[in-house]
Amino acid sequence: MTSRPMTLGVDLGGTGIKLGLVDAQGKLGPTTRFATPKGDPRAVVDLIANHALALIGGKSKRIKAIGIGAAGDIDPEKGIIRISPNLGWRNVPFKTLLTKKLPYPIVLDNDANAAAWGAYVVEAKKKIPNLLCVMLGTGVGGGIIINGRLYKGATGTAGEIGHMTLYPEGIPCACGNQGCLERYIGAKDLAKAVRREIESGQTTLMTEMVHGNLEALTPLIMTQAARKGDALARRLYEEAGERLGIGLASVVNFMNPDWIVLAGGISRAGSLILNPVRRTLLKRSFPTPAKAVKLFISKKDQDLGILGAGLLAHDF
Amino acid sequence: MTSRPMTLGVDLGGTGIKLGLVDAQGKLGPTTRFATPKGDPRAVVDLIANHALALIGGKSKRIKAIGIGAAGDIDPEKGIIRISPNLGWRNVPFKTLLTKKLPYPIVLDNDANAAAWGAYVVEAKKKIPNLLCVMLGTGVGGGIIINGRLYKGATGTAGEIGHMTLYPEGIPCACGNQGCLERYIGAKDLAKAVRREIESGQTTLMTEMVHGNLEALTPLIMTQAARKGDALARRLYEEAGERLGIGLASVVNFMNPDWIVLAGGISRAGSLILNPVRRTLLKRSFPTPAKAVKLFISKKDQDLGILGAGLLAHDF
Repeated sequence: MTSRPMTLGVDLGGTGIKLGLVDAQGKLGPTTRFATPKGDPRAVVDLIANHALALIGGKSKRIKAIGIGAAGDIDPEKGIIRISPNLGWRNVPFKTLLTKKLPYPIVLDNDANAAAWGAYVVEAKKKIPNLLCVMLGTGVGGGIIINGRLYKGATGTAGEIGHMTLYPEGIPCACGNQGCLERYIGAKDLAKAVRREIESGQTTLMTEMVHGNLEALTPLIMTQAARKGDALARRLYEEAGERLGIGLASVVNFMNPDWIVLAGGISRAGSLILNPVRRTLLKRSFPTPAKAVKLFISKKDQDLGILGAGLLAHDF
Repeated sequence: MTSRPMTLGVDLGGTGIKLGLVDAQGKLGPTTRFATPKGDPRAVVDLIANHALALIGGKSKRIKAIGIGAAGDIDPEKGIIRISPNLGWRNVPFKTLLTKKLPYPIVLDNDANAAAWGAYVVEAKKKIPNLLCVMLGTGVGGGIIINGRLYKGATGTAGEIGHMTLYPEGIPCACGNQGCLERYIGAKDLAKAVRREIESGQTTLMTEMVHGNLEALTPLIMTQAARKGDALARRLYEEAGERLGIGLASVVNFMNPDWIVLAGGISRAGSLILNPVRRTLLKRSFPTPAKAVKLFISKKDQDLGILGAGLLAHDF
């Protein structure tokens, strides 16, 4: 081990929290993962602080800063989590709370923004100007790189592709809109769709795979079922891919990015989701930008959030 | 008249062409307007060249460059109009053709990009970082300013808000997609909707206003009818505003701009269109970016395209 500076990257999601040490090139050191405690933000802060100190151990002098990517509407300037449906929080002064527990500079941003920065540094090696990273997890988020910089927009909200409208008269969303893309391709929503289909008589391998406990459905199980040829799992991925493709076709015509990087649980379905996305994109967006965009699934997968958060902290 | 440098701005649309002299601050000198000849691009080039020379007159030494904003998918680097449904052109080397007729450097860009630059320089005085300009004309285009620069994306296509999908199973569009926003709020499409309603028995002041010739319907007539209380015209503007609002709500969540500037024929309906847009935006996008965005109708209106094209040529 050299004594090069490190940061601690934190990926704070509604289901789980991941921590890891990250060097300036985006190389990941030791990591740790645990479930997100429900409710009081202070419990989450305490848990992150304890795990962070354990992970940092004797390396405290090499730690330059802590970067946190959190699910939700973030104010990066003030370090406030304004609204996070997945965490169930509103106006939490997260940076202030964590600063009391950890003696390091703290950078807070949206989790998909962090992932986008991670993809830009580690996968694109900063060699293209414009990139969109789409996080396909419990929710659906996005982060935007424009001209080689993280683009945050007027209020730090930019990139919320999951809350672009797919069906104007569609399913009501907790954000106040209806028909949001996330309501059709989010992991929770796909699990709901499976349960709905089973209740209406559809048979599927998934019932057996979760031993009848449909609450235990995950994208991983859906992917395993689809790979075994399960018709329902395959159809749901096909539909989800088409719907994501409709949203991305709009984004390709509007943002015209060089790269689109997919990450998060649903992206682990690989070609099951990527093929219908690509087909729909070519069908629905202008030929020139559709042919120009490089669309692929991140190879950093689960680590992209930690990496990106850590890399943001290096730029602190 | 001082001898400050000027450019010639050209707004090349499917219906009409406008030319004007523009100074570096965006002050507009003499202008000229004429209908777009159909068919051969060379006829359009000749006509523009002749009008340009007439407008330039004795000021030829003060003319620095010519800027053209054209409707369609443009390659600004090569000066090619790749696809323009409104002009009916494909792969027209417009810059090369015009260079043969006019001895000035020529800058070609998308018309909505030019308008966005015009709005940014003249209306925003370059004081905000991120702006979206939406051109509501025969078609619906958009131009994006990011961090004070015109954002063109990977292939110069960025900003095509009119071809974001509003209804995934909606009206087929010439672009190959279906349910594009433009198919519901473009001037041609609104006129079609009026004709459909009249054919199915709806009475409206507009029939009389165009002396029974429904082909002569324009946004101006629809606006005049609405202001006289015509129920059909009011309802169609209300619906168009809601639909534009749905699209803009997606854009506000994705791009989180500081300003959204509306321009073009439909925008002259003023509050008839602006009120439903604003209401829908507040209902459907995240509260933070929705409250932050300044949404208004350009005061430069018909001149925004010329101004922007001329200003782009100043930066040549």
